[in-house]
Amino acid sequence: MSTAQRLLNLLLHLSLIFQCSLAVSPFRKIVPRFPSAPIHPESSQRPSISNDQSGSNGPYETRYFTQVLDHFGFRPESYQTFQQRYLINSTFWGGPQRNAPIFVYTGNEGDIEWFTQNTGFMFETAPRFNALLVFIEHRFYGKSIPFGGNKEVAYSNSSTLGYLSSTQALADYATLITDLKKNWTAEDSPVVVFGGSYGGMLAAWFRLKYPHIAIGALSSSSPILNFDNITSPYSFNDIITRDFRSESENCYKVIKRSWQKIEDMAEQHGGLEILGKSFGLCKNSMDAGYLQGWLQTALVYTAMTDYPTPSNFLNPLPAYPVKQMCKAIDDPSKGDDDFAKLYGAANIYYNYSGGVSCFDLLDDSDPHGLGEWAWQACTEMVLPTDGNRETSIFPAQEYNYNDRVASCTFRFGVVPRPTWIPIEFGSHDIRRTLRRFGSNIIFFNGLRDPWSGGGVLKSISKSIVAIVAEKGAHHVDLRYSTSEDPKWLQDVRKKEIKIISGWISQYYQDLAE
Amino acid sequence: MSTAQRLLNLLLHLSLIFQCSLAVSPFRKIVPRFPSAPIHPESSQRPSISNDQSGSNGPYETRYFTQVLDHFGFRPESYQTFQQRYLINSTFWGGPQRNAPIFVYTGNEGDIEWFTQNTGFMFETAPRFNALLVFIEHRFYGKSIPFGGNKEVAYSNSSTLGYLSSTQALADYATLITDLKKNWTAEDSPVVVFGGSYGGMLAAWFRLKYPHIAIGALSSSSPILNFDNITSPYSFNDIITRDFRSESENCYKVIKRSWQKIEDMAEQHGGLEILGKSFGLCKNSMDAGYLQGWLQTALVYTAMTDYPTPSNFLNPLPAYPVKQMCKAIDDPSKGDDDFAKLYGAANIYYNYSGGVSCFDLLDDSDPHGLGEWAWQACTEMVLPTDGNRETSIFPAQEYNYNDRVASCTFRFGVVPRPTWIPIEFGSHDIRRTLRRFGSNIIFFNGLRDPWSGGGVLKSISKSIVAIVAEKGAHHVDLRYSTSEDPKWLQDVRKKEIKIISGWISQYYQDLAE
Repeated sequence: MSTAQRLLNLLLHLSLIFQCSLAVSPFRKIVPRFPSAPIHPESSQRPSISNDQSGSNGPYETRYFTQVLDHFGFRPESYQTFQQRYLINSTFWGGPQRNAPIFVYTGNEGDIEWFTQNTGFMFETAPRFNALLVFIEHRFYGKSIPFGGNKEVAYSNSSTLGYLSSTQALADYATLITDLKKNWTAEDSPVVVFGGSYGGMLAAWFRLKYPHIAIGALSSSSPILNFDNITSPYSFNDIITRDFRSESENCYKVIKRSWQKIEDMAEQHGGLEILGKSFGLCKNSMDAGYLQGWLQTALVYTAMTDYPTPSNFLNPLPAYPVKQMCKAIDDPSKGDDDFAKLYGAANIYYNYSGGVSCFDLLDDSDPHGLGEWAWQACTEMVLPTDGNRETSIFPAQEYNYNDRVASCTFRFGVVPRPTWIPIEFGSHDIRRTLRRFGSNIIFFNGLRDPWSGGGVLKSISKSIVAIVAEKGAHHVDLRYSTSEDPKWLQDVRKKEIKIISGWISQYYQDLAE
Repeated sequence: MSTAQRLLNLLLHLSLIFQCSLAVSPFRKIVPRFPSAPIHPESSQRPSISNDQSGSNGPYETRYFTQVLDHFGFRPESYQTFQQRYLINSTFWGGPQRNAPIFVYTGNEGDIEWFTQNTGFMFETAPRFNALLVFIEHRFYGKSIPFGGNKEVAYSNSSTLGYLSSTQALADYATLITDLKKNWTAEDSPVVVFGGSYGGMLAAWFRLKYPHIAIGALSSSSPILNFDNITSPYSFNDIITRDFRSESENCYKVIKRSWQKIEDMAEQHGGLEILGKSFGLCKNSMDAGYLQGWLQTALVYTAMTDYPTPSNFLNPLPAYPVKQMCKAIDDPSKGDDDFAKLYGAANIYYNYSGGVSCFDLLDDSDPHGLGEWAWQACTEMVLPTDGNRETSIFPAQEYNYNDRVASCTFRFGVVPRPTWIPIEFGSHDIRRTLRRFGSNIIFFNGLRDPWSGGGVLKSISKSIVAIVAEKGAHHVDLRYSTSEDPKWLQDVRKKEIKIISGWISQYYQDLAE
């Protein structure tokens, strides 16, 4: 594989959860680095799990459902099936006699176990509602791979990847839930769907498209308006800029000027070696871009996961990691050595647990089964997020759709359909449309989260409501609670529970009539 | 082609509009006979049409839209395109400056010109609303044939037919309307969708799935509950039975006993010749079944189109054709010659204009571009309608899903997905679901129409309303008005106009806010 190809592959590898979508970064190269350490839910308050579930290897049992490959067509290939993984926990369930609720997580672009472990909210609220918990894995991710479970075949080209789409995923969920309710004789149990990030988009869309299957949706940090220029392509990086600037003006300034400093140094004779040493790299960067991309990744991910308590969603991080990064940058002992300051900041993200001896800029391991988000970003998930104003913490640049077309054509031989998601799901004029149509959706957004720029930030109707947390980060509401959670976060969760409780009560009233 | 194959093909050829879906008839053979005469809208009150529209060959201009073959997937084949026909009339349109409405007919399984000509209601109400009229042809029908417009290729096998589905059709409409609004700078014009029969299902589903594109739907005679045993498989033939019995008990009795009489005669030496002469056949029936099927077709279609004024939807017919058929059967001059009575009834349906010299039981011409409804009936449109109780006007039989599986496997090598439509569109528990979700749908049903048994007959909410006409037949409300229309029909249309007017006013209010 040529360097150019490798770079493009890396570029396309970035996930919605983690990065500026299919980020054509200001640096033209971003090297994502995912944590290789195993992921643990960070809370000690995880509910105790009964041991009587066979096949249980965590707070859930793993099952598989035989799913149809193509719901919307009837070619011979459409009838192929694959094994879709789902996790189930019936510890708290009130059972079919009581028509007890079913809480379903609509899986994102990754291993469903990982999302499950990071969605403690469902485990913690299940006892109160006597809810059955189900976490469904998205097709083409984790262990839910079509074409005989063979990733090499499934990811090989556009003929196989062509079955990876949001509409097919939603139809998977509809089919699986319908079958599950039948098998558990729970046809009258109300289903509430939950999801964060892309999974949050799917949860909201599922309620809109399948209201007969889900009575409501908690859609957390879902940038459903980040399509087709409905919201600004600058918002993503504007928010990251605001996050760091809110900690200190100096922190923002040091980061902002560093990009040029790195470029200048890289161009000097021996400059790459100096950079290599300054940043503790295992191997010198091939040019300024790799290092810049690596640093940008740290800033973006840290802003997204700027949680108020220590966490381990992407990497192990302290509470308020943006503040910690800025503290490192503002450290007076570093004098005017910007590289030393940035190295300190990078260590917060890449080495908080302290076990890394040197950094590998090219590490593209994929511990979360993220697979082919790049494919989705090259077909329908065209979220323009990489515009940068002059004031941005990153170098200024315009969002350029043509760059994406070129990357996608090169990588997959596929041309995006950037207007499709708004046509299918109705993002334009959402307020006017949903004001008198639909019900029972919560849109949660934390304003520290760069994705919140594409979210629904104002309530639309009495039952399609926005909950906005000024200090919140990416789907923080869905995480396990901790004893250190700030009041605003406790209040958000209380509000969500109250609303969901209202949906369920209303449903039982209707059922009784 | 063997006789068995030919029979199966004919069996599968029947259209929703015209027949008991994929009718495994009591006779195991149904020979559909479609009128070969050209179809004219029956009203003399058609609005005058301006002549300044190029390409106009009727009260509309014909246009084509380049449509994508597969909206839900991204394989290389998905990106193929085809030319989708639509008809447009801008005579009455108030234009984009006034955000004047757009009325869209969501085409059924046939030539869109034919449906357009039989949907005078839209032409007659357009002036009042200053509406732009658009009639979109359903993929794989009429002139909207994928694969280069080549029917032989498009219909050749399940690999090509596999792209014929209701979800793809709805996405076609969403894409076309979005593009059309943009091209006409009419982004803020409200769209109301109209449809009858299968087109009525599509209109209702379109409003439910694409509320951001259509502000409301008039769904006429759409049996959206006729799936998965939600409504009774007996209802279709129960209603036909009731229709004839309501005219006279003798009429019902004569028809009911005739099936056995035909069989008995066919088994006699020379019996087929006698039947041939009795029914004026060009060529003797090969066995009793062909003749029985031909008669059943006449009864079914006549019940469906039992309009209060002379019509020419399927065949030219007098006003109240069921009454006319029973008059022929009750004709005292025929004594006890049941075959002569039935021949008289058959003439109402097959030869009302009087130009037919003999009847061809095997005529399967397709003047309405009906194409491959059989494919849809073999994949997702599994409407069980052919159960017959002991009291049925047809011989008793149970609905047998296995028969359909066998036919579909034989004909197309495809196995139906009978639960898919309820999963995708939510027919079970529709009242509970839509009571608090969705808005602005009118479900019209006429109780003389055998399809009304699968329709929504009770209002669900303040804005999802059922209009039921005791004396109405298949989407009679959508037809051109005539000076002989009974008051109940005038009232139905007035009510529909009033409701639609309310949707549009509400939309303008919302727009102004």
